[in-house]
Amino acid sequence: MSFAPLQIDPAVLAEGVNLMWVLVVTFLIFFMHAGFAMLEAGQVRSKNVANQLTKNLLTWSVGVVMFFLIGSGISSLVGGSGFASAALVGSSGDWVGWLFGAVFAMTAATIVSGAVAGRAKLRAYVTYTILLAAVIYPVVTGLTWGGGFIASLGYQDFAGGMIVHGMGGIAGLTAAWVLGPRIGRYNKDGSVNVIPGHSLTFAVLGTLILAFGWYGFNVGTAATVFAVEDGALTLGAFSYVGRVAMTTTIAMACGAIGASAVSLIKTGKVDTLYVANGLLAGLVGITAIPDTTTWWGAFVVGGIAGAQLPIVFGFVEKRLKIDDVCAVFPVHGSAGVIGTLLFPFVATSSALEGTTMVGAFIDQVVFVVIVAGWTIAATALVFGVLKAIGQARVTPEHERDGLDISEHGVDTYPEFGVDDGVATDGGSIVRTDGSVAGSEVTDNE
Amino acid sequence: MSFAPLQIDPAVLAEGVNLMWVLVVTFLIFFMHAGFAMLEAGQVRSKNVANQLTKNLLTWSVGVVMFFLIGSGISSLVGGSGFASAALVGSSGDWVGWLFGAVFAMTAATIVSGAVAGRAKLRAYVTYTILLAAVIYPVVTGLTWGGGFIASLGYQDFAGGMIVHGMGGIAGLTAAWVLGPRIGRYNKDGSVNVIPGHSLTFAVLGTLILAFGWYGFNVGTAATVFAVEDGALTLGAFSYVGRVAMTTTIAMACGAIGASAVSLIKTGKVDTLYVANGLLAGLVGITAIPDTTTWWGAFVVGGIAGAQLPIVFGFVEKRLKIDDVCAVFPVHGSAGVIGTLLFPFVATSSALEGTTMVGAFIDQVVFVVIVAGWTIAATALVFGVLKAIGQARVTPEHERDGLDISEHGVDTYPEFGVDDGVATDGGSIVRTDGSVAGSEVTDNE
Amino acid sequence: MSFAPLQIDPAVLAEGVNLMWVLVVTFLIFFMHAGFAMLEAGQVRSKNVANQLTKNLLTWSVGVVMFFLIGSGISSLVGGSGFASAALVGSSGDWVGWLFGAVFAMTAATIVSGAVAGRAKLRAYVTYTILLAAVIYPVVTGLTWGGGFIASLGYQDFAGGMIVHGMGGIAGLTAAWVLGPRIGRYNKDGSVNVIPGHSLTFAVLGTLILAFGWYGFNVGTAATVFAVEDGALTLGAFSYVGRVAMTTTIAMACGAIGASAVSLIKTGKVDTLYVANGLLAGLVGITAIPDTTTWWGAFVVGGIAGAQLPIVFGFVEKRLKIDDVCAVFPVHGSAGVIGTLLFPFVATSSALEGTTMVGAFIDQVVFVVIVAGWTIAATALVFGVLKAIGQARVTPEHERDGLDISEHGVDTYPEFGVDDGVATDGGSIVRTDGSVAGSEVTDNE
Repeated sequence: MSFAPLQIDPAVLAEGVNLMWVLVVTFLIFFMHAGFAMLEAGQVRSKNVANQLTKNLLTWSVGVVMFFLIGSGISSLVGGSGFASAALVGSSGDWVGWLFGAVFAMTAATIVSGAVAGRAKLRAYVTYTILLAAVIYPVVTGLTWGGGFIASLGYQDFAGGMIVHGMGGIAGLTAAWVLGPRIGRYNKDGSVNVIPGHSLTFAVLGTLILAFGWYGFNVGTAATVFAVEDGALTLGAFSYVGRVAMTTTIAMACGAIGASAVSLIKTGKVDTLYVANGLLAGLVGITAIPDTTTWWGAFVVGGIAGAQLPIVFGFVEKRLKIDDVCAVFPVHGSAGVIGTLLFPFVATSSALEGTTMVGAFIDQVVFVVIVAGWTIAATALVFGVLKAIGQARVTPEHERDGLDISEHGVDTYPEFGVDDGVATDGGSIVRTDGSVAGSEVTDNE
Repeated sequence: MSFAPLQIDPAVLAEGVNLMWVLVVTFLIFFMHAGFAMLEAGQVRSKNVANQLTKNLLTWSVGVVMFFLIGSGISSLVGGSGFASAALVGSSGDWVGWLFGAVFAMTAATIVSGAVAGRAKLRAYVTYTILLAAVIYPVVTGLTWGGGFIASLGYQDFAGGMIVHGMGGIAGLTAAWVLGPRIGRYNKDGSVNVIPGHSLTFAVLGTLILAFGWYGFNVGTAATVFAVEDGALTLGAFSYVGRVAMTTTIAMACGAIGASAVSLIKTGKVDTLYVANGLLAGLVGITAIPDTTTWWGAFVVGGIAGAQLPIVFGFVEKRLKIDDVCAVFPVHGSAGVIGTLLFPFVATSSALEGTTMVGAFIDQVVFVVIVAGWTIAATALVFGVLKAIGQARVTPEHERDGLDISEHGVDTYPEFGVDDGVATDGGSIVRTDGSVAGSEVTDNE
Repeated sequence: MSFAPLQIDPAVLAEGVNLMWVLVVTFLIFFMHAGFAMLEAGQVRSKNVANQLTKNLLTWSVGVVMFFLIGSGISSLVGGSGFASAALVGSSGDWVGWLFGAVFAMTAATIVSGAVAGRAKLRAYVTYTILLAAVIYPVVTGLTWGGGFIASLGYQDFAGGMIVHGMGGIAGLTAAWVLGPRIGRYNKDGSVNVIPGHSLTFAVLGTLILAFGWYGFNVGTAATVFAVEDGALTLGAFSYVGRVAMTTTIAMACGAIGASAVSLIKTGKVDTLYVANGLLAGLVGITAIPDTTTWWGAFVVGGIAGAQLPIVFGFVEKRLKIDDVCAVFPVHGSAGVIGTLLFPFVATSSALEGTTMVGAFIDQVVFVVIVAGWTIAATALVFGVLKAIGQARVTPEHERDGLDISEHGVDTYPEFGVDDGVATDGGSIVRTDGSVAGSEVTDNE
């Protein structure tokens, strides 16, 4: 009875446990789509809610198919491993890895929908999503996580602070800039009107769902519970997973506190949406560096990421005059860039071993510039072409009536009277031929 | 120091890790109740929301108790292992297994509530739920997963595409048929009125919660991370878990795309509810076969399951004239049957080893016919008896005023004026004795 | 090739797997904040929703930072291990443990916000949260789980039925008592007015999110999947994890059933909010004892915890005349105390080994009295001081207009007309300088 060496192969043990962990966190990251859907739905007018919800559903559905067939192959191609589409070369283990990559990709994609809310045509948005999932995002991951050009220079982005969130936020800003603002957002004299979203409750629900999923996003990127070294089982990324969990938590908290403080200073009140978006900005800020940041660094990064939110939002709104409806640039774009660039200044000493603070900073700047440049160029090109052929925006009439009716033929809240001048049918019963049921119905509802 | 053989028993290792996995996915599947509650609440009128929510809460509460005391025993009895109620013969490990089974059982149960919304009496619904959890569903699992008659013939249903979803969807259709449509749903000339739900936002939130939980449902059914073979640790179901995750993802996406395409072709617009329900139909379609389907098969199954949704919904509504409020038959019933029957045509070659395509198809047909027949008969009997004794439906007055008031004494949204002719109290303050506070309150709210 | 003894160290294996489990359940418990936010938001007036949401966001954000810097150190100090703040002495593994503790701490903190809704100043609430996270709660855990005085006497509280929920519920009741009721809650003749919450849908959504997270809370407290005994891997707490999962499930179900039954007896109808809160009370009731209760004991504890809810709520409302807005005392306070005290009467025989039923009961009484006494004293002191300096409540004008406007400057639902006499801006477009855009906007929304 001494067949012990054959009983448990450390590689099998590590594979099973690591697969389980990656699957669980992948599910959590997928659930962020519910978060984005609610966060964005809450921040748009009630006449555009169904449009926002549909865009979120189709981002995932269309995007994940494109990433399966093409994007995964483009990423490996740019990374130098040839066109290895998950559809053609996947096996059971590969498919888990593909899905883990896919939920990150779809996070980048879905960020854009919040910026272009209220006026982008559904088919314009879906066209962009197809290209983002098939090419634009895979080029970024190929250059970085996939081992391509940026990886050869050196950079730090643990879970996608720049690759996913920075990229998505910058893409959103670019798209909103090309599209132009919603009707009524700016006056002829250049002054700005606030168009408040229809439900803060849904927005905060979305925020908390996102924070929940983000633990999967950041902590889950510590993807190897176990590794095998010299034939022996060791903790893989789990040797530092506690730091990732701690810095993610502290940065999230300090993001909310930082945004609250700036809101209080600016207006004397604590704007709920700033608190929620500040919490998210804190999460974005730490996402590039949760594994390498000191505990006090998490306070710094989170606090700055949160505090910059109201300021950058005001700058985009009032100076750039870009109508970024759901504040995706201050939440994902600038917070992602800031966190990525702060890396050398808040890093643990071991994280900077073999380099200098200046050297690491230059690496990060080059990384950010390349990713931002590619994202801006590609996004401006796609929406520019769509705009040139008149396919980017809905008509002014449709925009005024709301995209729910013109693009989807639905009323999100048919029973609740809405005071913005858009007639609703008052929840009356509509026949499938379109006419409205009236007195001839004996037992009407 | 060579006591290695005693250090780690592969069986203990497998047990601990497998228990962890099963617990995590069980929690995810449980969370689907939040998804069903939101999906259904969003699809009913505001006057029936609290009723729908209460039914969902009681489905779980009453159902899980019945399944603990009786249903688990009936299932084992029908499966041939004697009446082994979880209450009486359970131990720690058994109870994890029981709970894993219970969350599947309660999924089947809760589907029905969406079909009978807006007119079924609470006590009729609860009575049916008791019988479903104690007998109707356990008979199905006893015959199949429990090793009973259908298992002896041969069939394929990995995670309950037919056993859970097909069964629930068929039960819902049967119940809705026996109950008759809501007042106002059909006109005297046979034409149809649409009664739109009160909130697409809640419906889409429910959809995404369900999709999240579904990863637990399908991927979690690959329940053994590790197995022990010849004394050695091996990957159990985790040797193919990546296929399950991939086909589930692709089918979900293609369900949404398929339903969107049909909606676009039929009406020129993309109906948000069709996209959401199409995504769910794609998930239902793959649920019987995620472990055995090729990657292109997942596209086929998901696409068909999604595309059939608007068509089957129209058929049920206009031809059968059955008022299936939340479209549970096209989402769970027909999609579940279709996925189950498509098995031999999309299966990997190894999945058909030892049989033929025709042989496997006949097995699936027999399986579907038995489960459907039993479900229809049992459900029609229960609701038929309830109807015969006048206990199935609320009175027409109560139905018109809404079940929230008559069955629960509450107003779901007391502050929001509703335009459907039902008077609300305008959120005024009500005394606990029922009178309305007025001028005598000095500092009214 | 016989280096087997070196291949897999059981301690490394246990550490990796246990860390994974603790992280997953920690995420689930964190998600309970979304549950509390929705449950409470649904139970307040629409004019106070943003305030409630902000309080929930800041409870987590401010609380977790305080618990990191100070609370963790106070807990260890009171427990007898010196001031070991997580900020200063944490390592990767310690930080996972800290975060696991933090999500329990923040659960206790967030309960209070539901009791003081609709009239507490934001800064009063945040001040209390800081003190709770830094001192009040850490003293309780130091005395118990941390190995302090109560631990030396003996007590049973597995997952915080008393330490977390009982403490939070009692703190909430105390704070609501010191603050006084909302304007309009009681008439001059002493009679009571019901002020219904604005959305049962959000309340039930919150309930189901909480139940989902509670599986992490209770089952996750069985925190050791594996242990190492005499050099060999064994199941740790997972040897009894099935009992925890089963009793938690049964008690939750029986809580909903118990509250439904009492509601039906009292009013002839099944109040949806009682069902939801009853389900939660059932969960609270079992939280101290899920590992030691028999299966029939789970029925008893859950049923009593649910049934007492409407009764205790009525007592607090009508006799004590304390305005506990979200019923946090009957849900968390009395249910937590009851479950804790029922321990000896429903325990398995092995759980009472070495003691007697009377001895165990006395231990539980002493434990409950000390925790309740400390909580009441500390909470009354903090809110008493705040009240004495006029910082506890908003002005009557602000209370009548709603805290959303006065404290946050926002309107949660700007497009939905609200019938409670509070003027809303009808969703009109507001300039950033505060003026309302009118006719000069050519293309208004």
